[in-house]
Amino acid sequence: MPEQLADTVDPANWTCPAPLRDQPVVVMGHGGGGALSAELMEQVFVPAYGNATLAGLADSAVLELGGARLAFSTDSYVVRPLFFPGGSLGDLAVNGTVNDLAMSGARPAYLSAAFVLEEGVELTVVGRIARAMGAAAEIAGVTIATGDTKVVESGHGDGVYVTTAGVGLVPDGVDIRPQRARPGDAVIVSGPIGLHGVAIMSVREGLEFGVEVASDTAPLADLVAAMLAVTPDIHVLRDPTRGGLAASLNEIARASGTGVRLQERAVPVPDAVANACGFLGLDPLYVANEGRLVAFVSPSAADEVLAAMRAHPQGAGATLIGECVADHPGMVVVATGLGGTRVVDLPLGEQLPRIC
Amino acid sequence: MPEQLADTVDPANWTCPAPLRDQPVVVMGHGGGGALSAELMEQVFVPAYGNATLAGLADSAVLELGGARLAFSTDSYVVRPLFFPGGSLGDLAVNGTVNDLAMSGARPAYLSAAFVLEEGVELTVVGRIARAMGAAAEIAGVTIATGDTKVVESGHGDGVYVTTAGVGLVPDGVDIRPQRARPGDAVIVSGPIGLHGVAIMSVREGLEFGVEVASDTAPLADLVAAMLAVTPDIHVLRDPTRGGLAASLNEIARASGTGVRLQERAVPVPDAVANACGFLGLDPLYVANEGRLVAFVSPSAADEVLAAMRAHPQGAGATLIGECVADHPGMVVVATGLGGTRVVDLPLGEQLPRIC
Repeated sequence: MPEQLADTVDPANWTCPAPLRDQPVVVMGHGGGGALSAELMEQVFVPAYGNATLAGLADSAVLELGGARLAFSTDSYVVRPLFFPGGSLGDLAVNGTVNDLAMSGARPAYLSAAFVLEEGVELTVVGRIARAMGAAAEIAGVTIATGDTKVVESGHGDGVYVTTAGVGLVPDGVDIRPQRARPGDAVIVSGPIGLHGVAIMSVREGLEFGVEVASDTAPLADLVAAMLAVTPDIHVLRDPTRGGLAASLNEIARASGTGVRLQERAVPVPDAVANACGFLGLDPLYVANEGRLVAFVSPSAADEVLAAMRAHPQGAGATLIGECVADHPGMVVVATGLGGTRVVDLPLGEQLPRIC
Repeated sequence: MPEQLADTVDPANWTCPAPLRDQPVVVMGHGGGGALSAELMEQVFVPAYGNATLAGLADSAVLELGGARLAFSTDSYVVRPLFFPGGSLGDLAVNGTVNDLAMSGARPAYLSAAFVLEEGVELTVVGRIARAMGAAAEIAGVTIATGDTKVVESGHGDGVYVTTAGVGLVPDGVDIRPQRARPGDAVIVSGPIGLHGVAIMSVREGLEFGVEVASDTAPLADLVAAMLAVTPDIHVLRDPTRGGLAASLNEIARASGTGVRLQERAVPVPDAVANACGFLGLDPLYVANEGRLVAFVSPSAADEVLAAMRAHPQGAGATLIGECVADHPGMVVVATGLGGTRVVDLPLGEQLPRIC
């Protein structure tokens, strides 16, 4: 539970709470979407802001305003390099926020776009990012309605950082959030995993894995609408970005007090991703995606939802990968091909910094 | 008019349009809120996003969503140093976005907060910024509902950058935007100008000007509500941040096709600001404010609005400083104390980079 903001706390005298004191400076892992990010959120931001909405830990907040039920979300994008196979920072900045809104079941409507530019970056680079954002917004059916630009001196940025925020409308009767997972739910992933992370890795490290792997960056709101058209019994949606499927499933298990059991052989891992992960010693479950979702769905509705997903271009590879269980609450386990099980823990940070 | 996004424009092949080719890289002035910022907006962002909302050039966009009339705005905050007399980056990040919403007449409701942290910054610094944001949000009556944290390597940031976005509700019948200025309008400023800019300058340059000057950072939505309670005849509101009163008045004059005529002796410039500006060769009209607004009001309502402002803590120093005129459309002139006039042009950039 969030601590209430005490009137007596003077911001100027705040010091690190005990759990953070062993590591009193920011490390790369604090931005990785894993255990260090969660600690920063729970120990620093939630107590500082003194409200419970933030503590809901969903990809977007659902709010009432003027009689409308809105989803509201934000993300900063610092991916390196700015352009990569399958997309650019601009595509991520639009699709990422569109997807965070969609994970509440919302129809995304408007985005804001704030740039922090580094002095000396070519205007052509800025223009290409902006054009990519405009094109992605058009495909996702959203309007970039407001923005801002700041410039920092050379050596205090990295070309272009973009922060988008978005608002969307949550349809009546839709209530999708991590707390709603329940034992028996079917766990479905919308397509092959790990493509974004491997695409970034390949260009950053100059590695090739036989075939060029392109990022899966894509908007998912239309897929979500198609799923909701067949049933309201969708309990949880999450786009497994930083920290991959492992981080998303752990967050859902912890928020809902349930367990998750995956069938390892069912998880769709493309050959190129498997090869790259084998070569680099990575687990595909921890690799970032930018155009996939994982859904927790009533078992009675699972077949219908799967069929609706497979009929949609963004869900053509939709697959049942496991189920939500009452055993081992807060924990994710994988049944391996050899008949054993292994625990898939929340990662500490992100194995590949600045993936989005 | 914004160019429509042509389907045939491939983002990857975009190059700088002719007006930008002489200066093909980003310079500090592109973030200064002056002519270079406007050029970047008009030549790069508006054509890239292909929509007209953005081209309205208001501090916040006003949108219809689910039957509600919403204001939506964003700003990134990169002020240096992070802490200064009167406030911190955290205060600006909340008050700045609250004020952008208020400049559409909206009641701000929810904010998002996205951090870009530099590896190695002390967590205590992050915590103090977050605490300042929580305290400022409580004072402004808004909820920080959603957020994000990214970390970049040392040498690619500057401790803490924060991007806030906000949504608020625009009351029925309220229509406040730069295009609505009309000849005859009274031009009112809510209090003494230049305090934020001089406060930042004094700590950054290690200068003292007799008395310590504190930033004026403050939320203005409650003042705006008090003004709207006496009359709906408020045509334009603007908070003169980057580029100061000069930039705000020029933007309003250009957007509305009117002229603005100020009485130099009427503009409230505190002695400490006048001294600092004299010492540094600056014009107070160009110095940034973070807790002031300028209002264009029907002449018939001006006395009532002034009285309502003066009765409010944030408007105690409200002053009539000039009027909107039909002469010299798009231009701001000042009647000097000596009986002459001088033109106050849109600044090229910001005289003090990273002021907010």
